[in-house]
Amino acid sequence: MTSIRIRPVTAEEFAPYGELLEPRAQATKMINAGRCERHHALATVERGGGEAIISIFRSEPVSLPYQCALLERHPLGSQAFVPLGPDPWLSIVAPDEGGRPGAPVAFLVPSGVGVNLRAGVWHGVLTPLDRAADFVVVDREGDGVNLEEVDIAPVTVEA
Amino acid sequence: MTSIRIRPVTAEEFAPYGELLEPRAQATKMINAGRCERHHALATVERGGGEAIISIFRSEPVSLPYQCALLERHPLGSQAFVPLGPDPWLSIVAPDEGGRPGAPVAFLVPSGVGVNLRAGVWHGVLTPLDRAADFVVVDREGDGVNLEEVDIAPVTVEA
Repeated sequence: MTSIRIRPVTAEEFAPYGELLEPRAQATKMINAGRCERHHALATVERGGGEAIISIFRSEPVSLPYQCALLERHPLGSQAFVPLGPDPWLSIVAPDEGGRPGAPVAFLVPSGVGVNLRAGVWHGVLTPLDRAADFVVVDREGDGVNLEEVDIAPVTVEA
Repeated sequence: MTSIRIRPVTAEEFAPYGELLEPRAQATKMINAGRCERHHALATVERGGGEAIISIFRSEPVSLPYQCALLERHPLGSQAFVPLGPDPWLSIVAPDEGGRPGAPVAFLVPSGVGVNLRAGVWHGVLTPLDRAADFVVVDREGDGVNLEEVDIAPVTVEA
């Protein structure tokens, strides 16, 4: 079975899949009489003719090594996940290769940092590590089929 | 000077202003083979012909008693705030009375709970308590004037 190692996420390496949701090195602007940094429009919701909605996902954790055997994508809309708990978490994504997912990549995302997956980006299911966690999710609601799931040859994700 | 006391937020009392962003008593549905609760569409982004964007606000805290002398509203879009830190925070809102804010109400929002302010709802600036805090903000970007600010007779917000 193929094994992959988790790598620390960086904005550059994540760029083919989407954006990191974290403060930039410099605030876009100061608001509220200088009391608040606005890090503006870290991501724009892709809503494919539908609407943007805000949900909460409460997920059981996974432990390492973790076997990933299924990837999914949402062709009509982006999907953002921001963890509400104190723990780092795992984001598994994959490039598209002619309508099928290519080799998965596993990123360790720090505590307090979210990701926005652009429309059509292959990804694993939500995988907090070791402890259950709540995530704010911003994605798309509307007509049309917005979920594709694909079984893949299982990949073992290792620390 | 008028004083108001902070009250613990409830979904019912907050309903005239917007939605609380927290898990419901029952998940909307289970996803990911039963491993994840989806609390679906706690709020829908009002975007008034624009787009929904995701930002982060990093705000200095306020201390109590806090003097509130300015309210604002966004007539074209909703604005959601979800705290990323471990602390409760303060949400100050006010009903609309003929285009001007009525008497402010100060809600204590628990740790991990966000609020979605509907388009046109009068509110104070972001007010974490005692410690600086980051918030995920989901609001609207697009053409048109989406900010009204009004000076009010100062109100003292007390614990």
